[in-house]
Amino acid sequence: PARRGGCEMAAWARAVRGLLLDVSGVLYDSGGEGGGVPIAGSVEAVRRIKASGLKLRFCTNETQATREQFVKKLQGLGFDISVAEVTAPAPAACRILKERNLRPHLLVHNDLVPEFAEIDKTNPNCVVIGDAAENFSYANLNEAFRLLIGMEKPVLISLGRGRYYKETDGLKLDVGAYMKALEYACDIQAEVVGKPAKTFFESALAEMGLPPQQAIMIGDDIVNDVGGAQRCGMRALQVRTGKYRPCDENHPQVKPDAYVNNLAEAVDIILQQL
Amino acid sequence: PARRGGCEMAAWARAVRGLLLDVSGVLYDSGGEGGGVPIAGSVEAVRRIKASGLKLRFCTNETQATREQFVKKLQGLGFDISVAEVTAPAPAACRILKERNLRPHLLVHNDLVPEFAEIDKTNPNCVVIGDAAENFSYANLNEAFRLLIGMEKPVLISLGRGRYYKETDGLKLDVGAYMKALEYACDIQAEVVGKPAKTFFESALAEMGLPPQQAIMIGDDIVNDVGGAQRCGMRALQVRTGKYRPCDENHPQVKPDAYVNNLAEAVDIILQQL
Repeated sequence: PARRGGCEMAAWARAVRGLLLDVSGVLYDSGGEGGGVPIAGSVEAVRRIKASGLKLRFCTNETQATREQFVKKLQGLGFDISVAEVTAPAPAACRILKERNLRPHLLVHNDLVPEFAEIDKTNPNCVVIGDAAENFSYANLNEAFRLLIGMEKPVLISLGRGRYYKETDGLKLDVGAYMKALEYACDIQAEVVGKPAKTFFESALAEMGLPPQQAIMIGDDIVNDVGGAQRCGMRALQVRTGKYRPCDENHPQVKPDAYVNNLAEAVDIILQQL
Repeated sequence: PARRGGCEMAAWARAVRGLLLDVSGVLYDSGGEGGGVPIAGSVEAVRRIKASGLKLRFCTNETQATREQFVKKLQGLGFDISVAEVTAPAPAACRILKERNLRPHLLVHNDLVPEFAEIDKTNPNCVVIGDAAENFSYANLNEAFRLLIGMEKPVLISLGRGRYYKETDGLKLDVGAYMKALEYACDIQAEVVGKPAKTFFESALAEMGLPPQQAIMIGDDIVNDVGGAQRCGMRALQVRTGKYRPCDENHPQVKPDAYVNNLAEAVDIILQQL
């Protein structure tokens, strides 16, 4: 059966009980430093999902702000969204830290630190790295490295594995690049929290109370959104907004269950099946 | 035939006409910021090599100083060494840049910049990365990344691939870690100049006018010194000084042609065969 184009979604879209939405590139385009503009039709699309009775989670790899700050920005752009609806890497990392009695040294953005307020950070036995931006200094990287190399079994938890992203003043190296530097120096593998980690999608599903067969992921990132969700047993749509590029449609490993021009079109098609 | 222990070196050591010596960890132990102490017997060992008529090259991956500064430091420690006897990554990189009409953007230590004085650096079409130390800032790494990702075919030349090194104030991430960050962000492979690159050892041999069968490498680094030289067709000895660790003797890929306690012992044994 053809898997491209919205019109072929009929069969499996009928089973859907919930949606997982990526945020940057699906709801809005980031302008760096707290700015951004909504993608046409997305504000209304979120309202229509909520009115339909479908369950909804916002699944983001954003780690430059607390969920409170992040949600406030989106509300300012007109979105109907609350902190309780957001699945993000920092809270997922906190669960892992608690479960395994890990005390992190944080190499993260200053604005993310409050997410770890409840976590014991004395005498660290692991390092948590996020998109630290200006905090990715020579001194801070050496400090994180020395702590890791001094551990009997170094544990590095990375809030995502992105290569780079664009802000108004140009491209910036993302957390994945610095994760690779520490992995190489210590000859270790980081544990990635956030998309495309299976546990991250499973958390979002658990929060919705749905099995993967009843949920659809909608994202602009062919690997982290679409590939990650599919490995979890979900269907996944790629929008042609945000970081989407035409060459994604020839990706050697990942094929979305369907392409849609934007979130509004995805919601049109899905709601027609209900 | 047994390949361990100096006494088995007799057969092949007789063919030797020249020696390649690693510097840090073989001649002296680095104390950071220009300091250091000679390893016992090494000053005299260099004198004895020169008096024997064997050819001699100092092969270093040092990129935090010009060869002039580097040699001056070693002379200050008592070594008989001149700039013309040193094979180092920066001049090797300059040869590659000239051959291929490459105009580098430099992400290197300030003290290394004079090595590139003759090279056209306008409108860069490649990036050269060395052990930049404090110059490994967030802004400088983003700048190097933007230049690379903006090239039709990004060229990244790395002056070595070391993971980390020790200075008096602690361990520091080496150039290899930052090379990996840029490789991952741009989805490219760096071209490594310096040990263990085959071309680097071949340059040193050409400078001595010897085929690999007539030269012996002596170093403390099982991979970069011993493995690299052996892949070039040379014999290679590992000294039990510098960064040598007992677990090196169980290295899964590399077996030195012999172990020696230090440079002085290596020279004792080699000169006995002549």
